[in-house]
Amino acid sequence: MQHLLKSTGLDEYNRYPGLENPSRILLGPGPSMVHPSVLNAMSLPLVGHLDPDFLRLMDNTQALLRYVFETENNLTIPISGTGSAAMEAAIANFVPLNQPVLVCVNGYFGLRMVEMAERYGGKVQVIERDWGDIFTPTEVKTALADRPAKVVAIVHAETSTGAQQPLDEIANIVHDQGGILIVDAVTSLGGVPVHVDEIGVDVCYSGTQKCLSVPPGLGPITISPRAREILANRKQVVPNWYLDLTLVEKYWGNERTYHHTAPISANYGLYEGLRIIYEEGLEERWTRHRNNAQLLWDGLEDMGLDLHVPEEHRLTTLTTVKIPEGVPDVEFRSRLLDKYNIEIAGGLGELKGKVWRIGLMGFSSSSENVVLLLDAFKDLLDHM
Amino acid sequence: MQHLLKSTGLDEYNRYPGLENPSRILLGPGPSMVHPSVLNAMSLPLVGHLDPDFLRLMDNTQALLRYVFETENNLTIPISGTGSAAMEAAIANFVPLNQPVLVCVNGYFGLRMVEMAERYGGKVQVIERDWGDIFTPTEVKTALADRPAKVVAIVHAETSTGAQQPLDEIANIVHDQGGILIVDAVTSLGGVPVHVDEIGVDVCYSGTQKCLSVPPGLGPITISPRAREILANRKQVVPNWYLDLTLVEKYWGNERTYHHTAPISANYGLYEGLRIIYEEGLEERWTRHRNNAQLLWDGLEDMGLDLHVPEEHRLTTLTTVKIPEGVPDVEFRSRLLDKYNIEIAGGLGELKGKVWRIGLMGFSSSSENVVLLLDAFKDLLDHM
Repeated sequence: MQHLLKSTGLDEYNRYPGLENPSRILLGPGPSMVHPSVLNAMSLPLVGHLDPDFLRLMDNTQALLRYVFETENNLTIPISGTGSAAMEAAIANFVPLNQPVLVCVNGYFGLRMVEMAERYGGKVQVIERDWGDIFTPTEVKTALADRPAKVVAIVHAETSTGAQQPLDEIANIVHDQGGILIVDAVTSLGGVPVHVDEIGVDVCYSGTQKCLSVPPGLGPITISPRAREILANRKQVVPNWYLDLTLVEKYWGNERTYHHTAPISANYGLYEGLRIIYEEGLEERWTRHRNNAQLLWDGLEDMGLDLHVPEEHRLTTLTTVKIPEGVPDVEFRSRLLDKYNIEIAGGLGELKGKVWRIGLMGFSSSSENVVLLLDAFKDLLDHM
Repeated sequence: MQHLLKSTGLDEYNRYPGLENPSRILLGPGPSMVHPSVLNAMSLPLVGHLDPDFLRLMDNTQALLRYVFETENNLTIPISGTGSAAMEAAIANFVPLNQPVLVCVNGYFGLRMVEMAERYGGKVQVIERDWGDIFTPTEVKTALADRPAKVVAIVHAETSTGAQQPLDEIANIVHDQGGILIVDAVTSLGGVPVHVDEIGVDVCYSGTQKCLSVPPGLGPITISPRAREILANRKQVVPNWYLDLTLVEKYWGNERTYHHTAPISANYGLYEGLRIIYEEGLEERWTRHRNNAQLLWDGLEDMGLDLHVPEEHRLTTLTTVKIPEGVPDVEFRSRLLDKYNIEIAGGLGELKGKVWRIGLMGFSSSSENVVLLLDAFKDLLDHM
C-alpha cells in the first residue's frame, strides 16, 4: 500500500518517533500539571468496565466526588467526555423544549451555554454584564420577575475573564420562581469553595483538567434530588444519547446496565486525583490556591501590571492580567514557552489580545511556579 | 465537615487506598489488553492542547489513523469520547431531520443506531436479520428500491454476535440511489480489513479499546469528501454541540480554533497504539488475528463446543460460543475471572444467557492467551 502512504501524509521512510514530549510548566487555563501519582495511575493495566474491581472503584470515585462537590447527591458521576461534554449533559438533560431559560452571560462560557441551550430548543433569555464583571442577585431576580424560567444557568468561575460569581442568594431566587439552577464550576471545583448543597445548586459540573489536576477527558457532574425528579418525569426522550443521564445513571447505579464502555484509565486517574485532594483536605487546598494567587497578584502589580478583575471578585485559580501597551501578545507567549518552558494563555473572545490568562490550579498552584513565572515575566518584559 | 463525610459514603477513618488493580487477561469484547508502551505513553507529563508539540502529535495521529482506516480522507480524527460517542457523531452530523434513513439490524449495535437515528429525527426504516446472520447486497438494494434513503447505516463487525458483514457491493448500491453509507467498525478496525476508500464507505467510526488496543475514551472517525460536502451544506445547525464536526474540524484543521480541551493523555496513548500498528503492519496484524482466531475455534470445537456464527462470516476478532446446556453462565464467568484471572463476556440483548463472547483483539490476540483460555475452559467445564 505504498501509494496510500504518501497521500495519507505518512512518511514511509521515517518511522514514527516514540513520544518525547517536553515537560512543561502549565500555568494556562488548563490542562494544569498532573501529580506523578495520577500519571502513574493512568499507566496501570486495565480491567474490564464491569469487573468487580472497577465497580468498586466507581463507588469510591462517586464518594470522593461528593466530597469535592460538598454534596450528598446520589447522582454524582464523571461524564465520559471533557468539561464541555458535562456542560452539554447539563443542558441536554435539563433544558426543556420551548420553555424559558435564563442564561447569565459575562464571558465566553456563558455564551457557550446560550449556544447549547438554543440547540436544545430552549427559549433562551440572556442577561449580560461586561466580561470580568459579575451579576448581583437583584439582577437575576429582576430578570426572572419579568419572565420566569424553568432553568437558570450561570458560570461560577469564568475561565475567559477570571471573575468569580457569588452564588449565595441566587439559588433561592431561582427556586422561589419554580426553576432549577445550573452552575458551571469548571475552573473552581477543587480550587475554590463551590458548596453545592449549602447553596442549593441543582446541577453542577466541572472538568478534570483544572483544579482537580487530572488529565482532560472526564466531566464530573452532580444532580440534586429536585433536578433528578424533573429528569425522571421528562416526557420527551433526552435528545442526546451519549449524555442521556437516564441511561448513564443505570450504569453508575445499582443496575450496572451497560451503556458505553467507561474510559477505564481516565477513571483511574480521576480516582487517584480525588484521593490526593481528600488527603490534602478541601479547606487546605482552597487556602493554598488563595495564598499562591496572592503571591502572583502582588508580584504582577509590583511589576506595574494591571489585573483585569477587581480583587473582591477575582478568582484565585485563574488570573487575567492586562497586556502592557506595545508588548506583542503571541510573541511574548511564544518566548515564554520556548525560553522558560512556561505555558500561559491569551484572551478568549472579547478579551483576545487584551489580557493574558494565568492559571494556578491544582498541582500547578505552587509558590515555586509563581516565582518562576514572575522571574520570567520580569526578564521578558525588560527585553521586549 | 464530618457530618458530610458519612452521608457522601466516605469513610473518614480509613483513608482511600492507592490503586492496586489486578492485571487481568482481557478476552472479552473490550477493553482489550494494552501494550506496555501505550500505558507508558498515558503516563507522560501533559502539554497544553494548543502546544506546538501537541499540534504536531495531532497531525501524526491523523496520518496514522488514515493508514489504519485505509483512507485518504482529510477529515480523519479521534472523537473525544468512546466508540458510542463516535457512533453518535456519525448519526448527529449526517442523519437529516425528517428524511428517510435505512438501518440494517442484526444485533445490539444496529439497534443502538436505530435508537440514535430516531432521537435525531430521522425517518428510520429497518431491515432485520437474525442475530449472527449478515445481509446480502440484494436485501439492501431491495429495501432501497422500495424507499430510497439519504443515509444507510450498517455494522461491519457486530460486537454482540461475532458476525462480519461484507461491505463490498453495498456502498455502490447506497451511492447509486443518492445516499451515503455509515459503517460501524468498532470491533474490526485494526483487526480485520475495513478498506474504507476501496469500498467507498462515507462515514466510518471505531473505538480505541478494541483492536487498536488503546484504553477506551476516544472514537476514531473518518469522513469521505462526499459526506463532508453534505456536512458543509447542512442548512440546520448540528443538534449536538460537543460532537458537531463543523466545529471539531476547525480544531483538527489548519485553523486550530479551540472547541473543547482535547484529552491529552488519551491522545498520547492513541498515537503510541497507532505507531505500534504501523510498525507491525496492517496486513501482518490481520493475519495474526486470523491465525489466533483459528487456534481458538479449533480448540473450542475440539472440546465439543458449538460456535454461534458460521465460519464464512465469522469475525476473527470476536467469537461467540454457545453456552453448553446445564452450565451456569454467570457462575462460569465468575470462576474464570477468579481462578484464572481471565475476563470474557456474556451475551448481549437477544443472545444473553445463550453465548459467551471471546475477544482476541489487538494486544490480546496472542497464541499464549488462546492456550490459557482453552486450558481454563477445559478445566472449568470438566468440573461443572
